[in-house]
Amino acid sequence: MPHQGGLSRRAGWAGGEPIANLLMAKTLAHPELVSLAAGFVDHRSLPVEPTRQALDAIWSNPEEARAGLQYGTTIGYPPLREAVLERMLQADGRSRRDLSVSVDQVVITAGSNQLLYLVSDVLLDPGDVVICGAPSYFVYLGTVGNLGVRAVGVETDQHGLIPEAIDGELARLEAAGELGRVKAIYVTTYYDNPTGVTLTADRRAALVEIAQRWSRQSKIYVIEDVAYRELRYYEDDTPSLRAFDPDGETVVQAGTFSKSFSPGIRVGWGILPPGLVEPVLAQKGNLDFGSPNLNQHLMAKVLQMGLFDPHVERLRAGYREKIDAILGAADELLSPIEGIQWVRPAGGLYVWLRLPEAIDSGLSGPLFDRAVAEGVLYVPGGYCYPKLGRSPRKNMIRLSFGIQSCQGIRRGIEALARAIRQVH
Amino acid sequence: MPHQGGLSRRAGWAGGEPIANLLMAKTLAHPELVSLAAGFVDHRSLPVEPTRQALDAIWSNPEEARAGLQYGTTIGYPPLREAVLERMLQADGRSRRDLSVSVDQVVITAGSNQLLYLVSDVLLDPGDVVICGAPSYFVYLGTVGNLGVRAVGVETDQHGLIPEAIDGELARLEAAGELGRVKAIYVTTYYDNPTGVTLTADRRAALVEIAQRWSRQSKIYVIEDVAYRELRYYEDDTPSLRAFDPDGETVVQAGTFSKSFSPGIRVGWGILPPGLVEPVLAQKGNLDFGSPNLNQHLMAKVLQMGLFDPHVERLRAGYREKIDAILGAADELLSPIEGIQWVRPAGGLYVWLRLPEAIDSGLSGPLFDRAVAEGVLYVPGGYCYPKLGRSPRKNMIRLSFGIQSCQGIRRGIEALARAIRQVH
Repeated sequence: MPHQGGLSRRAGWAGGEPIANLLMAKTLAHPELVSLAAGFVDHRSLPVEPTRQALDAIWSNPEEARAGLQYGTTIGYPPLREAVLERMLQADGRSRRDLSVSVDQVVITAGSNQLLYLVSDVLLDPGDVVICGAPSYFVYLGTVGNLGVRAVGVETDQHGLIPEAIDGELARLEAAGELGRVKAIYVTTYYDNPTGVTLTADRRAALVEIAQRWSRQSKIYVIEDVAYRELRYYEDDTPSLRAFDPDGETVVQAGTFSKSFSPGIRVGWGILPPGLVEPVLAQKGNLDFGSPNLNQHLMAKVLQMGLFDPHVERLRAGYREKIDAILGAADELLSPIEGIQWVRPAGGLYVWLRLPEAIDSGLSGPLFDRAVAEGVLYVPGGYCYPKLGRSPRKNMIRLSFGIQSCQGIRRGIEALARAIRQVH
Repeated sequence: MPHQGGLSRRAGWAGGEPIANLLMAKTLAHPELVSLAAGFVDHRSLPVEPTRQALDAIWSNPEEARAGLQYGTTIGYPPLREAVLERMLQADGRSRRDLSVSVDQVVITAGSNQLLYLVSDVLLDPGDVVICGAPSYFVYLGTVGNLGVRAVGVETDQHGLIPEAIDGELARLEAAGELGRVKAIYVTTYYDNPTGVTLTADRRAALVEIAQRWSRQSKIYVIEDVAYRELRYYEDDTPSLRAFDPDGETVVQAGTFSKSFSPGIRVGWGILPPGLVEPVLAQKGNLDFGSPNLNQHLMAKVLQMGLFDPHVERLRAGYREKIDAILGAADELLSPIEGIQWVRPAGGLYVWLRLPEAIDSGLSGPLFDRAVAEGVLYVPGGYCYPKLGRSPRKNMIRLSFGIQSCQGIRRGIEALARAIRQVH
């Protein structure tokens, strides 16, 4: 492959301008737009007061403040790693013994995204295959694309990834002599970005079983992204996919406090199979030798002082109003339009909308510019599809309700309904 | 290349256990050891009070606190990028126009190390060549090793990298048909890790000229690491290497507040040639889409409130005592031993000691275990040499004086002198 402009092959794989920049440019050009595009969290709900309390507590003991200002270790601050593991086990109703897990398998990263990057980097060579939903979280598709890895999408429905579709895809890859290149299955198990759906418990068990059953030529890991687990508004919690992997050799769990507390603090983590800990730490050592220690001390203090759960409760109350606003507006304004469908998410930040088949939602299609003219910005669904496997639907859009007020959400849906009627 | 244990080739390239872990294990096993190994900064000098003042100022305005707790942009917080650029220009005595530079070329990263990683990742393919000093900063050697890149070391002296040695190496590579694989020259321009030396002004100019003159088959960048620039105790500042590149197309400058303020806050930056900005941001977007926003707001506030420079002055006063302690102890206790030499650094955190030729300073040599038995830990110099090019000297050690008290430093040098006499 030729070098482009003196850059590395990986720089070339990183691809063109990300959708985020394109949408940012639109927003700057049309400041009056209601953005239902950005996946940012609600601005007014950010934890100003809990963070102040935790910082005050740290600074009340200069030695503790000093510890936070010094280097930490690459794997991360032990009390935070203990707290992360304990929360996961409590939520899953399992013990360390049940899940063959210890704090030595918990690594702190700059958001869950860095963990996804590190794990992908140590597992995947150019040309390797990751199985994921069609659609999937587009930032992760960018990450694997950047590694020269093939993301192969399989069918999903209102219960998430379809096990039979994965089995079918693996059989096809085996027949093509490619099974040995399959290294991972990636899935967001709670309130998926972009679909909003939660993988059902029986499918969680099936996914672990499938990964293990097909690990005949290469080990196939399941990378479980739990970024939205805490953002549930209308149902009980479900044990994580990791809880269905009692040996702990198959599932990588990636989590973050970015959505549930603060993206500006940017503390995430991974709970890793034992064999991946050293390789991930070696790469993280090259990259930044440990995430900012101050942020880790801060999150540990927030958890230890009991400031986290009350904040999440407030967050849920706020987002519950917003999800009611967007689903209410959709029921009223979109459902009368023939051919529009959506699954009602019970949590998260996204509604995944299916338009009439004939409508192309892409940047160069008729709807996008009409929507901007009417005053609303959305993410064209096409950005959320892997390049290979199940072909993209052109008539999907992702709506985010995190940052807008309820009034803003309603105005946005009104504008969207007008735009759709104009191109329908 | 075969896959090892189902991991990627890059995971294999990341190499064995890093020296940091080996030294950590020794420290844990012998808690009474005086460590002159760790490159940590002085613990008591960490900016507890300035950080508290800046946090209080941010929290005095809830909207400002909220902004810090929200996502930022991938490139980083504009006021911080402005401040970084302004400081560089003031220190260099140049204007934006003089150096063809704008704030659009300033990217905020998780320490300078992440910038070094990102730039290397977008420039270097497996098999490509980076020219660097023999010795060089060993974490960067790990980073390029992890990319499958060949680090080729050239001779250095008390004035830093020797331009004629670089010319000679480039001529050799050209004769071997490898000139097209050379993509960068890496250099720490102030108080180098491990040698402690500062590159002289005429060599800075020469380095830019060499990189440009040899950019015949591939563009050759100079990656300038200024991590220790502020830590000068006994001389005036020198314009950076970037100041010798008025077009701004050749030099990448990587800097950090980790050494000069706090590694726990971990804010670094890059000042990039225009053509590297987009590729670096695309990679950073995949990795973490922006360094923690809170830390960026905090450092911007520290600078804006005028808290940074007084802190650096205090830091210099403290380190000046320590460098006097280590050089004084070395004069007294080491110089009587025949065959020991060192360059007196005017700043930084390191003294690079040359032992008598016959003494192997490595982990498996006779000195290391004797030194541990006598009560001192050092970094064997062998870890600081690139794999290719000028062959490593086995009789070098790196001493760090950052974390020990003056008494600890003296005890450490006493122990080292005893150990050397025993194996000499």
